[in-house]
Amino acid sequence: MSDNNFADIILYGGNVVNVLTREVYTADIAIKGKYILLVGDGEKLIGPDTLVVDVQGKYLAPGFIDSHMHFESSMLTITEFSRLSIPSGTTTLVADPHEIGNALGPIGMKAMAEEASKVPNHVHLVVPALTPDCPTLETAAYDITSKDMEEILNYPNVIGIGELQGFSNAKHVYRNTPEVITDLIASTSYAKSIGQIVDGNAPELFGNELAAHIIATGGECSCHETTTKEECVEKLRQGVYVFMREGSTQKNMAECIRAVTEEGLDSRRCILATDDMVAEDLEKLGHMNEIVKRTIKQGVDPVEAIQMVTINPATYFGFKDRGVLAPGKLADIAIISDINEMKVDAVFIEGELVAVDGKLLINLPQYTYPDYVKNSVKRQPITERDLEIYADGREALVRCIELIPDQNLTGKLEANIKVNNGIVNPDPNKDILEIACIERYGRNGNVGKAFIKGFGLKDGAFAESVAHDTHNIIVVGTNIRDMTEAVNRVIELGGGLAVAKNGRIIEDMRLPVGGLITDELKGEEVSRKIAKLEKTIKEDLGCRVHAPFMHLSFVSLSTSPEWKITDKGLVDVNNFEILTPVVE
Amino acid sequence: MSDNNFADIILYGGNVVNVLTREVYTADIAIKGKYILLVGDGEKLIGPDTLVVDVQGKYLAPGFIDSHMHFESSMLTITEFSRLSIPSGTTTLVADPHEIGNALGPIGMKAMAEEASKVPNHVHLVVPALTPDCPTLETAAYDITSKDMEEILNYPNVIGIGELQGFSNAKHVYRNTPEVITDLIASTSYAKSIGQIVDGNAPELFGNELAAHIIATGGECSCHETTTKEECVEKLRQGVYVFMREGSTQKNMAECIRAVTEEGLDSRRCILATDDMVAEDLEKLGHMNEIVKRTIKQGVDPVEAIQMVTINPATYFGFKDRGVLAPGKLADIAIISDINEMKVDAVFIEGELVAVDGKLLINLPQYTYPDYVKNSVKRQPITERDLEIYADGREALVRCIELIPDQNLTGKLEANIKVNNGIVNPDPNKDILEIACIERYGRNGNVGKAFIKGFGLKDGAFAESVAHDTHNIIVVGTNIRDMTEAVNRVIELGGGLAVAKNGRIIEDMRLPVGGLITDELKGEEVSRKIAKLEKTIKEDLGCRVHAPFMHLSFVSLSTSPEWKITDKGLVDVNNFEILTPVVE
Repeated sequence: MSDNNFADIILYGGNVVNVLTREVYTADIAIKGKYILLVGDGEKLIGPDTLVVDVQGKYLAPGFIDSHMHFESSMLTITEFSRLSIPSGTTTLVADPHEIGNALGPIGMKAMAEEASKVPNHVHLVVPALTPDCPTLETAAYDITSKDMEEILNYPNVIGIGELQGFSNAKHVYRNTPEVITDLIASTSYAKSIGQIVDGNAPELFGNELAAHIIATGGECSCHETTTKEECVEKLRQGVYVFMREGSTQKNMAECIRAVTEEGLDSRRCILATDDMVAEDLEKLGHMNEIVKRTIKQGVDPVEAIQMVTINPATYFGFKDRGVLAPGKLADIAIISDINEMKVDAVFIEGELVAVDGKLLINLPQYTYPDYVKNSVKRQPITERDLEIYADGREALVRCIELIPDQNLTGKLEANIKVNNGIVNPDPNKDILEIACIERYGRNGNVGKAFIKGFGLKDGAFAESVAHDTHNIIVVGTNIRDMTEAVNRVIELGGGLAVAKNGRIIEDMRLPVGGLITDELKGEEVSRKIAKLEKTIKEDLGCRVHAPFMHLSFVSLSTSPEWKITDKGLVDVNNFEILTPVVE
Repeated sequence: MSDNNFADIILYGGNVVNVLTREVYTADIAIKGKYILLVGDGEKLIGPDTLVVDVQGKYLAPGFIDSHMHFESSMLTITEFSRLSIPSGTTTLVADPHEIGNALGPIGMKAMAEEASKVPNHVHLVVPALTPDCPTLETAAYDITSKDMEEILNYPNVIGIGELQGFSNAKHVYRNTPEVITDLIASTSYAKSIGQIVDGNAPELFGNELAAHIIATGGECSCHETTTKEECVEKLRQGVYVFMREGSTQKNMAECIRAVTEEGLDSRRCILATDDMVAEDLEKLGHMNEIVKRTIKQGVDPVEAIQMVTINPATYFGFKDRGVLAPGKLADIAIISDINEMKVDAVFIEGELVAVDGKLLINLPQYTYPDYVKNSVKRQPITERDLEIYADGREALVRCIELIPDQNLTGKLEANIKVNNGIVNPDPNKDILEIACIERYGRNGNVGKAFIKGFGLKDGAFAESVAHDTHNIIVVGTNIRDMTEAVNRVIELGGGLAVAKNGRIIEDMRLPVGGLITDELKGEEVSRKIAKLEKTIKEDLGCRVHAPFMHLSFVSLSTSPEWKITDKGLVDVNNFEILTPVVE
């Protein structure tokens, strides 16, 4: 910062997108050091050393905020995610590291918090109050409870608790393990007592149940799992900040936004968020600018849509230093050439020009993840015998998870398949494959086994150490030989993805950080590598579903019905019990 | 609160004014204990002991917030102000006790904070960072500086610093006593460091000067002295929360609101406030309901106008427990029979029905002000000689303050008047009266003297211990005998108002608390008593201006130009100096 009364930089003659007043008008923005000095006529602030940048015809908006996201979904480090998201105008990310929290416990989140504190954009964390989500039904690396809150809520950049599960998501948990509720209340009370936020979600809640959820979160809460207009109207009316989700797989914005476009509701508590975004989308489509563009296409005024990624989330989170273009605020600015298409030409963070034409101009600091987050896979290789499912006779009635494309929910069915020498083998002709979940944290060595229909593999197997939310190793296959190979490659890699066919590995990728993230590849490389892996699964194994790793990773999510697989076995979510793979 | 799962009270079938979504629709409100349990269909919450109140056809709004006001302007205690304001729907008051701060120092504000903590409505204080406003030009009871912040910001109910003077108000102070700026920055930094707010005002500031003011207040500030549409547009664009003022004398709302009605700006940072309201207006017109009504009459949608006294100020102040009708919020509710006329039928505070049809239903707790706030007048009676102004010869050219009706600003003029035996006497025929300001805190015994034109008195004198902002005794009169009588009666009363004619007191009123407030009369009695005093001044003394006590009290306000009177003498505000009453 220069030591005089002039601006360091004047952005001259741009169209200021004023999210305070919902206007666009021509003005200059004067920047000094990290801050905005003036939005108006900058003439008098131009000194001999002032850099005057002509931005006539361009739109100047506050840097964008993604209010709820998980870095783990992209398999990228914070640094690599930032490399891809900053050029599209995103300057603040609020991330929930609950995946790494399950896979590594507090030390994993601490490492992520340290990385968050090093990047030039603003990365805040909201941490889980509970791991695993379904105690007694699954095994995580570490059991996070209220005892951990004082430590983890005080890590750098942590601003609160994330994803407190709503009753509809976790009613089975709350009914069967009521002690969890008491513990969660202790955690949220502590967070509120130190002025932090409690995020949550409340899918499908209305009326009395929604009111109970809001009261339980302390009165001010958010929900990023609202999926219908009716639900969105209800939540906005009750004071919930609705994070309209628009990520790589879950796209709820177009439905939710009807509360604004059709019902004309005040949108001050409407916020846009991605939740889960894969590297390829980030690289090819963009980030919050893309989500804003889609929102505009639904008929929302561009400035109102931009409010949903700037002033609205800044108000919710209490970010008093940003979210608007005004004197004294951080100079986080997106320069946009086409406001309807949300094409971002350049980005400033804290007064520094950091990206132009989609390219980052600055070097991001190198962050090396410590070794202790790279040894999350703590088990010996499995043998084929570990995956065998036994039954008497020549045929068995087996329980089969039914995969539903593009949903976390699954169905359930029973089917008869052949038994050879006491072993029940998968039947690819009927698309009945074996699925297994192998505990990988050295806590009990569990192997849960069942069957699944829907992937359509004709050959081979694939496995990964990404398996929501506890992230044990999950594998699906046409035969236990390839399944064993794939699992053992994931173990050998120290976490990652592997595809096996005919007894050998044909493709793989290491995810060294917690078995979830790679710190070895750049964002673009991850994007290409995943595409290659998916192509292999489709072409060499005959898989019918797109994004097979993502689909597989959700088959272990035991907070959503009906049947799921965890390291403890086949979970009947609604009845909160473990079933045997063979009907007895 | 009943010990079951049912509501204590159901307000059945009302038109809910939803300030979150800017809608009105039919719903029930369920209340349990202090809180709202549900806004929606309350059917399932009706138990055997639930009180169901049919409010069909009525409008249910969150209780109103007055975001900036001074109890002292009403001469009422907090308790008596609350008695008059609660029945009109006001449930939260944010008060700046800087008058009593000048008259008593921290102990006065502490007593007020204690009273604030006893009333059933919510009373918060924002305290001065500086008394007197113009150090070196006037004497207050106590010099508040940054050294006092730790103590007074931690009194009960204190939420921040109030009325940090903008550059245009205090430029003379800042230029001539720059050490004040350093001290104010220390105070505001401390307030921000403990999470408190810094209110301020910034009249007539635009562009660079406004930006500098915003940055000095730490980036988020309010202004309650915005008087033009252009100024309001500018401030909203820069992120200032504009408190549109509409009090007993200063009425700025109709002009400011044009930023919304004509320019269509987002009104989320528009807030309504009264600043100064006299008892008579409160009694006869109402409080925030009246201000909302006037705002509606300017063409603002009723729900949007109600947002300006509910969710908007709650967001600014960070009141997360109120300002909206939603689960988990305090059940502070105004029941309105006509939303355009803002007729308030009943009021709930924290779940209790406290007022119906303009009458308070509950007993307010008795608060007795301690003796140490009642002995603020610490001086001996004056003699006529103390008020004499001397000059040689038969005529003198004197300096004369020019009163401007309904303004704090004054003009200035010089005039020739007669000298008798070396004494310059007022000349009522030319409407040139003497004005004096008598230090009353036992600090130096100063008597400042000058002349004034504009009151039009033909006879007598009147005096008061209300004299902005230091509240010494101010007196104006046609002769020094009556002036002396009036001043000495104010001293004898321990603070108050007095009218003298022909050497005797013809009307008076005690203001025992700091010389500013009465704790001896009810609100209605104060209203009648003031009316009687003003009638006497008009009819018996021949005064031409309405509200003569209020006008007189502002002639000592040395932050506003041109000439003012303080205990140090005639103040030339722009030049920051003391002038002699006679041109030498």
